[in-house]
Amino acid sequence: MKIVDGGVCAVNGVLAAGACDDDYGVAVIVCKDSDSTAVFTSNKIVAAPVILTKNAVENGKLSAVVANSGNANCFTGDQGIEDGKAMASVVAEELDFKFEDVAVASTGVIGRLMPMDIIGSLIKKAVLRLENSAEASKNAAEAIMTTDTYSKEFAVETTLKNGKSIRIGGITKGSGMIAPNMGTMLCFITTDVKASSSELNTALKKAVDASFNMVVVDGDESTNDTVILMANGESGESIDENFEEALEYVCCQLASMMAKDGEGATKFMEVEVNGAVNTEEARLAAKAVVSSSLVKTALFGADPNWGRIVAAVGYSGADIDPKVVSVSLQSLNKRVDIVDHGIIAAFEGTSQLEEAEDIMEEKNIRIIIDLGLGNGNATAYGCDLSYDYVSINAEYTT
Amino acid sequence: MKIVDGGVCAVNGVLAAGACDDDYGVAVIVCKDSDSTAVFTSNKIVAAPVILTKNAVENGKLSAVVANSGNANCFTGDQGIEDGKAMASVVAEELDFKFEDVAVASTGVIGRLMPMDIIGSLIKKAVLRLENSAEASKNAAEAIMTTDTYSKEFAVETTLKNGKSIRIGGITKGSGMIAPNMGTMLCFITTDVKASSSELNTALKKAVDASFNMVVVDGDESTNDTVILMANGESGESIDENFEEALEYVCCQLASMMAKDGEGATKFMEVEVNGAVNTEEARLAAKAVVSSSLVKTALFGADPNWGRIVAAVGYSGADIDPKVVSVSLQSLNKRVDIVDHGIIAAFEGTSQLEEAEDIMEEKNIRIIIDLGLGNGNATAYGCDLSYDYVSINAEYTT
Repeated sequence: MKIVDGGVCAVNGVLAAGACDDDYGVAVIVCKDSDSTAVFTSNKIVAAPVILTKNAVENGKLSAVVANSGNANCFTGDQGIEDGKAMASVVAEELDFKFEDVAVASTGVIGRLMPMDIIGSLIKKAVLRLENSAEASKNAAEAIMTTDTYSKEFAVETTLKNGKSIRIGGITKGSGMIAPNMGTMLCFITTDVKASSSELNTALKKAVDASFNMVVVDGDESTNDTVILMANGESGESIDENFEEALEYVCCQLASMMAKDGEGATKFMEVEVNGAVNTEEARLAAKAVVSSSLVKTALFGADPNWGRIVAAVGYSGADIDPKVVSVSLQSLNKRVDIVDHGIIAAFEGTSQLEEAEDIMEEKNIRIIIDLGLGNGNATAYGCDLSYDYVSINAEYTT
Repeated sequence: MKIVDGGVCAVNGVLAAGACDDDYGVAVIVCKDSDSTAVFTSNKIVAAPVILTKNAVENGKLSAVVANSGNANCFTGDQGIEDGKAMASVVAEELDFKFEDVAVASTGVIGRLMPMDIIGSLIKKAVLRLENSAEASKNAAEAIMTTDTYSKEFAVETTLKNGKSIRIGGITKGSGMIAPNMGTMLCFITTDVKASSSELNTALKKAVDASFNMVVVDGDESTNDTVILMANGESGESIDENFEEALEYVCCQLASMMAKDGEGATKFMEVEVNGAVNTEEARLAAKAVVSSSLVKTALFGADPNWGRIVAAVGYSGADIDPKVVSVSLQSLNKRVDIVDHGIIAAFEGTSQLEEAEDIMEEKNIRIIIDLGLGNGNATAYGCDLSYDYVSINAEYTT
């Protein structure tokens, strides 16, 4: 597997474009006649585009996605549905696609009607710019940014078991309302494999569970989350396990980017839980630690207050026995054991505590917890809780 | 029911005292030969004093509680158990109580051994100061403070159905690691009713469910939470429904004080959910809203971003139908409907949105959500998420 440039346009035959004004952005991605699938928010309040895109992918086919930032088109009633349909219609008409082959996605403020004159003209502008290039993918990724500080793309080329190469490319946006079961996140992934919608769905669900469902910025689950996977079959190759592995890798990379660019984040944390009773409990434990406000503020303050880590595992619902638990901290160059099989190694005055303090000063911190009870493993991705998170969110709509 | 002074000492026969140095505090409360009960954290990592106090109340009898701040005595192994026992022993010996009639509680940093020389001498100092006075209760309440900015006491006198008066008094401490199922909170309640331990347990669990289990500061559930209820029978009166109601009222008042004094809090919110399918769903919805980082930062920024309120209910697990939901904001003097049976009333440019902005500027804000689906009601208590929360917790141990 090798990393390649080009985001969604790393895949042959995919076109992309973005168009923005000061308040709104529109991205269009064309992946013609693709077998497609999607995964959505589990929030019971869902935005109009989620309802529409659920319908659109039901027959397993898509040719394009149109997405806007600046307005979530959520809690907007019948008018919201009409506006979402209008977005898809513009793309369908301009490109001569069937209306039901165009997916829609939105991100932004909840409870405001869409400014359809602006959005409509941005869509038309984007359609005119469609092309297969790294720049086009980047423009699309930029157009769907809200409080993101940089655009997020990732693509790989991987070799299938039969020796043939295929590609997977994706763009995504964060960066607030990010919780397990996806935050306000939109992610569009393209690939040139040949696969049925249901094969793609199995692979996507598995990849999303290990990636986007393991990212926490603030624990608020959005009303608009959407991950779409479109396979145009250009390579002529069918999917196999190598494809699934590469898809999970792409999703994990995009998920890490979201965590790193979490609202106000100054630090990135990966929390690895090993030795849980099973995978589900490992995930519960890892997510509790990345979600903990007290762990997040300790990270921000470079404070090796490991008691908060253990306490978070304790309330996660996962089984834990204090007598066998181990906790380590790791940065790029260092690793230190804080608790070793229930015995505290990093007491006050020890070199271990000093090393722990050094690691907590780093930008990228890995917290490794071994519960010592079984074979369940999981990794969750998160960031610190900073003054800037408060400031960004205290003044978002006004 | 009338509010009275004196905290735990509002109850006849109760003695209290506090003793502090710069880093640690000790409170002793004596409620001799009391029928007693207690409720504890559900965190799977529990501190030594929780283990000891569970044993102590098992026979339904207590004569005293000794509590310290500055060290949680958690993740301290066998030595922690010995230290907790030593705390109880000092009180038992000095006051000639049975060792097993003394409950222990601790709050502070996790994973450090107790400084038993200091704690031991503070206990002896406190025991010498024991008396039945409002000042003594206040001293005890002050001694268990950690990041609290003021001490928390509340007491009432209520009339039973037979016309006789009884009293209930309590002290508590917050103010971080406060989550549903109790945060780092200690609460000691005294009363002069006559009741069995199991009657008290039923009443206490009901009161805690409606009060301390509905408070969220940061969603981190502590390893040390303990609520103890001691009834010395001085009034000679048995409990009835009026007692239960008064106990719930005292617990709700103490819970509100914790939320108001949440770490870094500049504002207090009550979230009232009506019309849920049942009480359990009403509680889920109310707790999701007070827990939401995005609602909390909107409160801090006085931003009437009601979409975040609706989104939080949406992911709470409670049933919600956007077509029938209503949301209102209320301050002391004002109330404004934001969403009325699914129709947005507070659009941009409306007087409703202006009023909503005015209300969000207030110190005490009530968010009222009617789900329009059933008869389930609940109220949760919380606070905003401010720069100071981050600063307090970024630099707690170091």
